Amino acid sequence: MGYEGKIFKYVGTRPIRPDGIDKVTGRANYGADQNLPGMLSGRILRSPHAHARILSIDMSRAARLPGVKAVVTSADFPEIPSVVAEGGEGGGVNYGDMSANVMARGKVMYEGHAIAAVAAVSDAIAEEALSLIDVKYEILPHVIDVDEAMKPGAPVLHGHIFTTGIEPRPEKPSNIVLRTQMGLGDPDAAFKDADIIIERSFKTEAVHQGYIEPHAAVAEWSEDGQCRIWCSSQGHFMVRTYTAAILKMELSQIRVTPAEIGGGFGGKLTVYIEPVAVLLARKAKRPVRIVMSRQEVFRATGPTSGTSIDVKIGAKKDGRLVAGAAEFRYQAGGFAGSPVGPACMTAFACYNMEHSRAVGYEVLVNRPMCVAYRAPGAPMAALAVESVIDEIAQKLNIDPIELRLMNASKEGTTAAYGPKFEAIGNIECLNAVKNHPNYKIPLGPNQGRGIASGFWFNFGGQSSAAINIAADGTVTVAYGCPDIGGSRASMALIAAEVLGIEFEKVRPVIGDTSTVGFNDVTGGSRITFATGMAVIQAAEDAIVKLRERAALIWEIGIEAVVWEDGHARPASANAGDFEPLSLAKIAEQAPLTGGPIIGSASLTANGPGPAFGTHMCDVEVDPETGHITVLRYLVTQDAGKAIHPSYVEGQMQGGATQGIGWALNEEYFYSADGRLQNAAFLDYRIPVASDMPMIDTVIIEVPSPSHPFGVRGVGEVSIVPPLAAVANAVSRAIGVRMTSLPLSPPKILAAIEGK
Amino acid sequence: MGYEGKIFKYVGTRPIRPDGIDKVTGRANYGADQNLPGMLSGRILRSPHAHARILSIDMSRAARLPGVKAVVTSADFPEIPSVVAEGGEGGGVNYGDMSANVMARGKVMYEGHAIAAVAAVSDAIAEEALSLIDVKYEILPHVIDVDEAMKPGAPVLHGHIFTTGIEPRPEKPSNIVLRTQMGLGDPDAAFKDADIIIERSFKTEAVHQGYIEPHAAVAEWSEDGQCRIWCSSQGHFMVRTYTAAILKMELSQIRVTPAEIGGGFGGKLTVYIEPVAVLLARKAKRPVRIVMSRQEVFRATGPTSGTSIDVKIGAKKDGRLVAGAAEFRYQAGGFAGSPVGPACMTAFACYNMEHSRAVGYEVLVNRPMCVAYRAPGAPMAALAVESVIDEIAQKLNIDPIELRLMNASKEGTTAAYGPKFEAIGNIECLNAVKNHPNYKIPLGPNQGRGIASGFWFNFGGQSSAAINIAADGTVTVAYGCPDIGGSRASMALIAAEVLGIEFEKVRPVIGDTSTVGFNDVTGGSRITFATGMAVIQAAEDAIVKLRERAALIWEIGIEAVVWEDGHARPASANAGDFEPLSLAKIAEQAPLTGGPIIGSASLTANGPGPAFGTHMCDVEVDPETGHITVLRYLVTQDAGKAIHPSYVEGQMQGGATQGIGWALNEEYFYSADGRLQNAAFLDYRIPVASDMPMIDTVIIEVPSPSHPFGVRGVGEVSIVPPLAAVANAVSRAIGVRMTSLPLSPPKILAAIEGK
Repeated sequence: MGYEGKIFKYVGTRPIRPDGIDKVTGRANYGADQNLPGMLSGRILRSPHAHARILSIDMSRAARLPGVKAVVTSADFPEIPSVVAEGGEGGGVNYGDMSANVMARGKVMYEGHAIAAVAAVSDAIAEEALSLIDVKYEILPHVIDVDEAMKPGAPVLHGHIFTTGIEPRPEKPSNIVLRTQMGLGDPDAAFKDADIIIERSFKTEAVHQGYIEPHAAVAEWSEDGQCRIWCSSQGHFMVRTYTAAILKMELSQIRVTPAEIGGGFGGKLTVYIEPVAVLLARKAKRPVRIVMSRQEVFRATGPTSGTSIDVKIGAKKDGRLVAGAAEFRYQAGGFAGSPVGPACMTAFACYNMEHSRAVGYEVLVNRPMCVAYRAPGAPMAALAVESVIDEIAQKLNIDPIELRLMNASKEGTTAAYGPKFEAIGNIECLNAVKNHPNYKIPLGPNQGRGIASGFWFNFGGQSSAAINIAADGTVTVAYGCPDIGGSRASMALIAAEVLGIEFEKVRPVIGDTSTVGFNDVTGGSRITFATGMAVIQAAEDAIVKLRERAALIWEIGIEAVVWEDGHARPASANAGDFEPLSLAKIAEQAPLTGGPIIGSASLTANGPGPAFGTHMCDVEVDPETGHITVLRYLVTQDAGKAIHPSYVEGQMQGGATQGIGWALNEEYFYSADGRLQNAAFLDYRIPVASDMPMIDTVIIEVPSPSHPFGVRGVGEVSIVPPLAAVANAVSRAIGVRMTSLPLSPPKILAAIEGK
Repeated sequence: MGYEGKIFKYVGTRPIRPDGIDKVTGRANYGADQNLPGMLSGRILRSPHAHARILSIDMSRAARLPGVKAVVTSADFPEIPSVVAEGGEGGGVNYGDMSANVMARGKVMYEGHAIAAVAAVSDAIAEEALSLIDVKYEILPHVIDVDEAMKPGAPVLHGHIFTTGIEPRPEKPSNIVLRTQMGLGDPDAAFKDADIIIERSFKTEAVHQGYIEPHAAVAEWSEDGQCRIWCSSQGHFMVRTYTAAILKMELSQIRVTPAEIGGGFGGKLTVYIEPVAVLLARKAKRPVRIVMSRQEVFRATGPTSGTSIDVKIGAKKDGRLVAGAAEFRYQAGGFAGSPVGPACMTAFACYNMEHSRAVGYEVLVNRPMCVAYRAPGAPMAALAVESVIDEIAQKLNIDPIELRLMNASKEGTTAAYGPKFEAIGNIECLNAVKNHPNYKIPLGPNQGRGIASGFWFNFGGQSSAAINIAADGTVTVAYGCPDIGGSRASMALIAAEVLGIEFEKVRPVIGDTSTVGFNDVTGGSRITFATGMAVIQAAEDAIVKLRERAALIWEIGIEAVVWEDGHARPASANAGDFEPLSLAKIAEQAPLTGGPIIGSASLTANGPGPAFGTHMCDVEVDPETGHITVLRYLVTQDAGKAIHPSYVEGQMQGGATQGIGWALNEEYFYSADGRLQNAAFLDYRIPVASDMPMIDTVIIEVPSPSHPFGVRGVGEVSIVPPLAAVANAVSRAIGVRMTSLPLSPPKILAAIEGK
């Protein structure tokens, strides 16, 4: 079916989300809410050392404690080599590393690394059992900082890592997992044509995704090898795939039921506790629940990389950019996992620049294994590039929007990472800021305005959906993607739109891994795009069946039946004179016309529409205290087509807020012995409502050519510009270019004093 | 695909059922095992009177009791007229009666009838609250016996019942809900040609289905009108349909998750507590669990009809049957619901008799509303007909098998209820008994051998199934029918057979009402037949997709790819020289060839193959005590095609056992004031293992023409012959024709004495 030029009836409206009331009334069940008869409490012992060899683990006293029903160490896990898997659902994953991260094998790589686990009849007994586990360590020298970890002579975390991407292969193992490079043209030559070159180095701290809900999982094991898992995650099929790989099980033997998820932001795209809970349940022959504490979340999950970045950009006097070069050094944590690849790919994507080079290094440090965090790798890269762009605008005395408009990538621009852009909304976002009333508000003393753009690919991936039509004409949309940002509402709106029935008649339901078709994770801003496309196709499949049934009732051919506005109608006067049949009328007769009416679809969605956004941040800096107040904040972003504008705006505001926190407050403090000192929300400060102004939003809609409705992912690009937007605003407010995040008061005061 | 003549690889084998280990280890979760945060205990107040007008219900003291969170009476239910609904999923149901049975409106129709309900924070408080409910009754005269209830002057239960099926419509309301009649030829004339006519009257008692698991349900309500129900039932879609109808809700707003079911036998084909739990949860704003006690199960659920039956059959001297006539008077309980229709339809179906008439009456009495019990209505009809057949054989001195073989219905016979039989296994079953070694064992003193045949239509109905293929080539079969008798094993065997992969690679999963397509109830012996057919079609749909993917990989047309033995292969040497691709290999590449591979199907299965069975029972009667010992018991039955022979045999043995209990022990004792005196398994005695010999079985396989594999339903026909087989054996043992069940020792002694 063609939807181009269609005037949407439900898509673009703002009904209350189907999961809204359950969530605000506290009725929604999250990971820790699952409760099974006979369930045990599982607890994990974690390393107090940043880097150490495990000489021995004596579980005997813990195992003997009355009430303890099972103990587990890495010896209970299958041996899996540390290599990257190929093909299939889990392609690209190093299951050996994942397993060793879930439960340390021989060595601990960071403080908080899991060493052993117990399951007991109460939380208190489980805690006591942990204290009875006797671990003997040989403490090893450790390294926390990315630049330190790259130096010759730094403590080497793994003996088997020989940097890939360097020819010839290095002779000695190091912490540098890989070197990657990409680019266009010949930047070294092009820099010679520049009238002005700005070169800067930046440093950002590792930050945590900061989801409110700690990881929680319940596992149940049956003697025939079947197991069930209930947990909160960004993809219960992912939990199935990873748990099966780590425990060498068959996929269909594991049934994962999704709980509601209290935030993920990329941090729930892997497993930590699920395989442990399964092993404990298997040994104990009883269900086991593991719920992380906030301390454990900080010490053993997340974060995204802390980085060290050099950027050099050259421009003509008129503002035309001629060349860019960047080097990204990204922390990986104790195992490989940094997003340095996307950093290189996204760095210069907002600009139509003929010559560019991006080099990336992924570097092991004694920190938790990095995992995805919303547009992984891109915000730090954008900080560096957009700060330099801002400085060029300052130096050339050009309006920062105009400079960007002059150089903006657009349809037909070849991106540095390869593809030629189709229709994109980069320029539209810049113009939306330029034309916004906020941009005209004059600034006062100690105030500054920062502009920054950002880019994110978005991801497509595999999705499946089914449309089940009940006898009263109400409809269930069943699929398998956890709802983080309102995707239930999107799926219901899309189904209502295609079927032509009211939104209220459609109930979206997220099924477990055994009852619905496979779906990739809720990540990559892919759900409304890819699963939405599966819902469109499933609804279209249902419409074919509805037309078939109408044709059967009318005793005419299906080609003589059209579907319009929720009704089967004769295609023409020639087809016959029949009263239109509503979906409900056809559904009522389904038992007599062939049985239940079900539409289904599955697909791999390729070529998701890339997303751009431009942010504007106004700050005021208190020169006495170094405190920064965000006065106003504007997000413009290309959504392609906003299915539910409120939740698109929510994504825009949420990404901006997280980026502002990253820019201003968030960082990990490590002691000299490599122990995290601020593993709690009191000391690791994410923005709260009172820190923030209302964030203004402008949704741009440049339809994506790869989606029937023009949808683009909206969840991630909103976190790409804020680091730079805030830093640019602060730099302009105090008259000093700030290159190190977070912009904490001591740094601000030092910069003002050093002026 | 054609399966005729196929040599099955998995179908017909006897693997351990997928739900087996969970059930024997106690891990399986039944209705009462669901536990939600903040869940309340729901309890129901029940009428102590058999028939009474409710003058007033004062809930105020109960509601004020601390810890009581909600109270409910019929005033909280929508008004629904007492008429039979038309069309759709719930067609043929009288929702007004169902609602009034769930919660009494104005009058109580039987002792145990629900009057009010409470939800409280503990069982004890809920119980105490029940004692604080003040109900004022006007006690009315009642009637328990079916023949009494038909008499003019009997207490009339409902003022609006004017017998249907009688012309002209009666002027006065009565307890006779309907009169039905069917037949062939002119029996009154034909009786004149008979050399011998036997005419007998029979009486059977109401019996309960006797499932081990009492009814249990948990309901949760959200302020937006969505609700969830977890319960044990024979059909969670049925629970959805009925709850929606009674509470005037939309179907898609209710999500019902099936628990394991601890027996149903037809008794869990309706709702009792689910709508009550929903209303309590709505008022309390907290989840509510209601679990019936065994007392409540006996007083307020089930049973099947007690009956009063007259049968007259005429035969020639050579044994040829010339005519039959029967009148069936079946109890309905306090609301219409007797299976007198199927009694009339099945009564003479085993015989090729040109002249027959069956008349049925459904009669209200002050007992619980009758619901289905395994082949509803047929066992009592078979008792009557097969006893008279046995007596004719005795009188004519013909072997009872030979008499039946001489008159047996077969392919081409027109059944008294209308259709002409296609291929059926009636004669094969009779011959299987005749040729069985048990039939040759000589009998001793006080011993008797009883033969009886039985017939059941079986049901088709609506089913849906999906085949989800995981990346490692393991498969989930998702559908929506509770597994009572091993249907998970059947569905997995069928899927393995069609796909050509090992049984162990297939995991059958029963999904909730929102995540899988609609399925009719687990009843009518329909699951292996109809849902099995949906699984075949879903697997065939998956195979089309697997062939498409192989064609894509090989870059040839799909028509050049065949599926054989779990592999895609080139259709011929011309198609190309390709290594066969296994299902797992194709699945691994699915992300790159179009996404997840899912097969789906939905259908209305028509024309299920009718089932026949012949039973042989040997008993010994102790003339001192009247105690009856079942010496041996043989069941032969036409399964069409036994998918999992062990579970077919289990159905044959289970039906026989229930029938033996019905024949020998089971009955309700009512006091003069209409109160049930034996509402517990100690006093209502169902057979236990030590009462029974090992039941021998012979599976006959006359393929059903209406199923691709030839499957017929096997769950119900096994309970049709036993009442007659036992009664015939006892009658022959003691030399007195026994016509009243149960054959309790006092009756036996009285018969021996009266000889």
